[in-house]
Amino acid sequence: MADIGFVGLGIMGRPMVRNLMAAGNTVTVYDIVGTAIEEMATEGAIPASSSSEVASKNPLIITMVPDSADAEAAILGANGVLEGASSGSIVIDMSSIAPASSQKIAAGCEGQGVDFLDAPVSGGEPGAIAGTLAIMVGGKKDVFDKYVDVFAPMGNSTYCGDYGAGNTTKLANQIIVAINIAAVGEALVLAKKAGLDPNVVFDAIKGGLAGSTVLNAKAPMMIEGNFNPGFRVRLHQKDLNNALQTAHELSVPLPFTALAQQIIGSLMNEGKGDADHSAIANFIEDMAGTKISG
Amino acid sequence: MADIGFVGLGIMGRPMVRNLMAAGNTVTVYDIVGTAIEEMATEGAIPASSSSEVASKNPLIITMVPDSADAEAAILGANGVLEGASSGSIVIDMSSIAPASSQKIAAGCEGQGVDFLDAPVSGGEPGAIAGTLAIMVGGKKDVFDKYVDVFAPMGNSTYCGDYGAGNTTKLANQIIVAINIAAVGEALVLAKKAGLDPNVVFDAIKGGLAGSTVLNAKAPMMIEGNFNPGFRVRLHQKDLNNALQTAHELSVPLPFTALAQQIIGSLMNEGKGDADHSAIANFIEDMAGTKISG
Amino acid sequence: MADIGFVGLGIMGRPMVRNLMAAGNTVTVYDIVGTAIEEMATEGAIPASSSSEVASKNPLIITMVPDSADAEAAILGANGVLEGASSGSIVIDMSSIAPASSQKIAAGCEGQGVDFLDAPVSGGEPGAIAGTLAIMVGGKKDVFDKYVDVFAPMGNSTYCGDYGAGNTTKLANQIIVAINIAAVGEALVLAKKAGLDPNVVFDAIKGGLAGSTVLNAKAPMMIEGNFNPGFRVRLHQKDLNNALQTAHELSVPLPFTALAQQIIGSLMNEGKGDADHSAIANFIEDMAGTKISG
Amino acid sequence: MADIGFVGLGIMGRPMVRNLMAAGNTVTVYDIVGTAIEEMATEGAIPASSSSEVASKNPLIITMVPDSADAEAAILGANGVLEGASSGSIVIDMSSIAPASSQKIAAGCEGQGVDFLDAPVSGGEPGAIAGTLAIMVGGKKDVFDKYVDVFAPMGNSTYCGDYGAGNTTKLANQIIVAINIAAVGEALVLAKKAGLDPNVVFDAIKGGLAGSTVLNAKAPMMIEGNFNPGFRVRLHQKDLNNALQTAHELSVPLPFTALAQQIIGSLMNEGKGDADHSAIANFIEDMAGTKISG
Repeated sequence: MADIGFVGLGIMGRPMVRNLMAAGNTVTVYDIVGTAIEEMATEGAIPASSSSEVASKNPLIITMVPDSADAEAAILGANGVLEGASSGSIVIDMSSIAPASSQKIAAGCEGQGVDFLDAPVSGGEPGAIAGTLAIMVGGKKDVFDKYVDVFAPMGNSTYCGDYGAGNTTKLANQIIVAINIAAVGEALVLAKKAGLDPNVVFDAIKGGLAGSTVLNAKAPMMIEGNFNPGFRVRLHQKDLNNALQTAHELSVPLPFTALAQQIIGSLMNEGKGDADHSAIANFIEDMAGTKISG
Repeated sequence: MADIGFVGLGIMGRPMVRNLMAAGNTVTVYDIVGTAIEEMATEGAIPASSSSEVASKNPLIITMVPDSADAEAAILGANGVLEGASSGSIVIDMSSIAPASSQKIAAGCEGQGVDFLDAPVSGGEPGAIAGTLAIMVGGKKDVFDKYVDVFAPMGNSTYCGDYGAGNTTKLANQIIVAINIAAVGEALVLAKKAGLDPNVVFDAIKGGLAGSTVLNAKAPMMIEGNFNPGFRVRLHQKDLNNALQTAHELSVPLPFTALAQQIIGSLMNEGKGDADHSAIANFIEDMAGTKISG
Repeated sequence: MADIGFVGLGIMGRPMVRNLMAAGNTVTVYDIVGTAIEEMATEGAIPASSSSEVASKNPLIITMVPDSADAEAAILGANGVLEGASSGSIVIDMSSIAPASSQKIAAGCEGQGVDFLDAPVSGGEPGAIAGTLAIMVGGKKDVFDKYVDVFAPMGNSTYCGDYGAGNTTKLANQIIVAINIAAVGEALVLAKKAGLDPNVVFDAIKGGLAGSTVLNAKAPMMIEGNFNPGFRVRLHQKDLNNALQTAHELSVPLPFTALAQQIIGSLMNEGKGDADHSAIANFIEDMAGTKISG
Repeated sequence: MADIGFVGLGIMGRPMVRNLMAAGNTVTVYDIVGTAIEEMATEGAIPASSSSEVASKNPLIITMVPDSADAEAAILGANGVLEGASSGSIVIDMSSIAPASSQKIAAGCEGQGVDFLDAPVSGGEPGAIAGTLAIMVGGKKDVFDKYVDVFAPMGNSTYCGDYGAGNTTKLANQIIVAINIAAVGEALVLAKKAGLDPNVVFDAIKGGLAGSTVLNAKAPMMIEGNFNPGFRVRLHQKDLNNALQTAHELSVPLPFTALAQQIIGSLMNEGKGDADHSAIANFIEDMAGTKISG
């Protein structure tokens, strides 16, 4: 077991810390929200007063923050991880951010002789609590091999390639999920307005080529009209924004992703940022003047 | 076992007839292509010289033809099924056509006291050969119950609702499949141009929310650059055309389906009508100037 | 001056008849709505009891009906124009319909030795009243030359090509108009939500490359929040439907037109079918949660 | 007449400097490319060795650089304008950049008591040479009024609103232009594949609601197959990127702009970055397998 520093105690970070402690690790924690530090301290974590302090006391630091700018600030910024880290330390950023940002952070770490992995996750809060996150890892293969066991209490890790590859893989995942939700929405709205029972359609097609984890997970929510998260619209917006920015930098046109992102923007303006991302179907419902549910 | 009339001996119809005969049925066949009749006759089918004759000799008639106009001609037209059918006969149209066309045919049948089911299939030629088609059935529930065993040698049938519901369900299926193929294409093109190995991305995401039958079946084809059908682009174009026309009649906007259909139109113009529908990814590849394979 | 038969006395047909009469022509009229015939009779037109009768009494027949099916019924159908027309007659269909339908009607006419022109108009009710319609004409050039003076009281005619070319030109026109309205909507919504005065933006850009008749005519309506027709959303839907169907038959992908049509479908579902087509901007406004006006 | 500092001597900056000198101003110039400075010096400009030096010697400084990062570097960065400027100086940035970047630069200027205007132009190299640029200006109204005569030798200026409003107006302009080019492309490709002469269609519709400066300027280029710039695809990509980023920050969905941008990305990958932006029609041509020209 190891001493681990952990920066970022949000809805994902807290259960991840708990699982790391439950596996016998000693975890030093920091967050910009003081109460989050206190909460974890009562559960056995060691409180720190800055990311820099976390890094100065632990050679292995995990960061789990909202977006690219937060990760860059927490690691490269003032009082950040790199101010406290020493040559030979390892930083594992588990935030879902733009691959180019991961690469920038990696360069900053390498400049100080610090190892780096980008390791975003999917599976959401339930996966974080259950320790069953899918962890997509980018960085040097030998570094991944050296630290692969660190991930085990949090979920299942896969090596995806060089710096940024974890986040690129995450974006690929999120592209498919968003567009497939839209596809399921279009299919069920058409069926409903044609007078069919969407449950019957769901049962009829789920075993064939239209079958998917999205269909199994989200069609029942659309049919019930239940859009409680789950994975929030605002987070999917962030991910698709990172996908489209990355695509722009790489000159990769993504017409379906771009359309999905405009629709998510409309949902945000309707105040649905905290709805489950299956609410993408609401946009199609509104266009058709028909609800899949009811 | 029963006497069955079968009209339409194409790539799907022939193996369906074989499975019906193998199950002990006596099958009388007709096609507008004479050699197809001869071929099935050598295998034990009884040849007929028109759809009308097929219907006059069999109270149960299955039709399996390319599109709405063909089905209407074969059933409602001159020398068609209804010219030979008697009150109490049953027509099962297994063609993939527009639901409105199924409803028109149903009305024609009802006008002569003939029962009707629309029963399009998915699963393609392999499913037709193996007798494992997914059969989506619309019509009167008691009629479905009376004839459900007829479908067993060809695949697995599901009752979907009133006249046209089988074809509406098929269209819902095809909408999801086409858009999900596009989604997988966008994800893998982005990953490839970012320098990742698409096989690694595929392995990393297939177990999560991005997982689907399309991903499992089509990502490997995209990665190999193998677009041998499978299900042909031109048939998917026909299905999406029926979907968009049905959606227009029902006033259901389908922005992703509409975009997918424009892209399929481009593939048709490139001479890819007989490629597998996973070639939808080719359009994204061409936009990006990058191949997922190689 | 001439004897002219005129079938179709709607919002467009009535002022067109008035202008033909004002120019000294004798006009015999028919409509499926009897009161429209009576109204025109009080103004000096000769009433007839069918399209066939109109044609039997006049060698020159103009038709002006809503869509393809109406035009085919009025000309090719029972009691239609061709039942009354003689060899040497001329049918000028001024309805806005699918080019393929014009070609079908042309073939029917040719089969009876009757000349045919398709001659859809733009300019709407105001143009019909003022006699300033833009008239786009398809058919044989010598036939156009022979009858070009007939159009003069109604507007300005242009020869566009063979049968259907008038309607194809009209569809090209409607594609540009619909998409350009959407473009103006996106530009003004962005400007408004950025805090600018849309009137100032309109003034700043109207003289440059963004300038257009649509911008001049529709931006002020969007800025006032005035969506009184003008040209109705439901008619633009009909035109884009004909455009997309024609495009499908010709294998021409039209991704922007397809997107515009899905949006118009949404407006129809909101009950905006009789709003001016500048209401396409409402869809963008709703997505953004911002009004250009106010 | 005045002493003016001018930073940025590219394809636009050089003729702008010439017009300023021709109007009697004394112009001190800097560019990161030394030969551009030398060229202008031979024409009578005073060479400087940095943006800072330009600003230290002139209280009125104009900047004209490619994009947001360049403008921020030239004005806010090391050896930049603000290092040399004094309280009471005025910076006029005529670059086409993101409005948020203009606002950031404005804040930097205000922090040093320096006035600021963002004043992007349209009209391209021909307009720069002729001194007929359309200049869209953002900033304080009294500052605009004080310096409005400065713009006169370069073109016609319009006050658009507070900081960034000039660039927001420019983006609104570019949105309309890009989408309208696509619209014209779709219309002419459809007409051509339907067998019509696109010149005839152009003539028939240019006087009506489809008429626009884009139609008049770009349809003839598409019909000739001449895509020599004019305004380059790569610059329009930059502008739409700024538009989409601005829209994302303001939560304004722009579905047509997003689609146009994906298409421009595809043109870039085909090596058409230096073609005229009317090449957007090439994408529609390629989808249809048809050329408007020839």
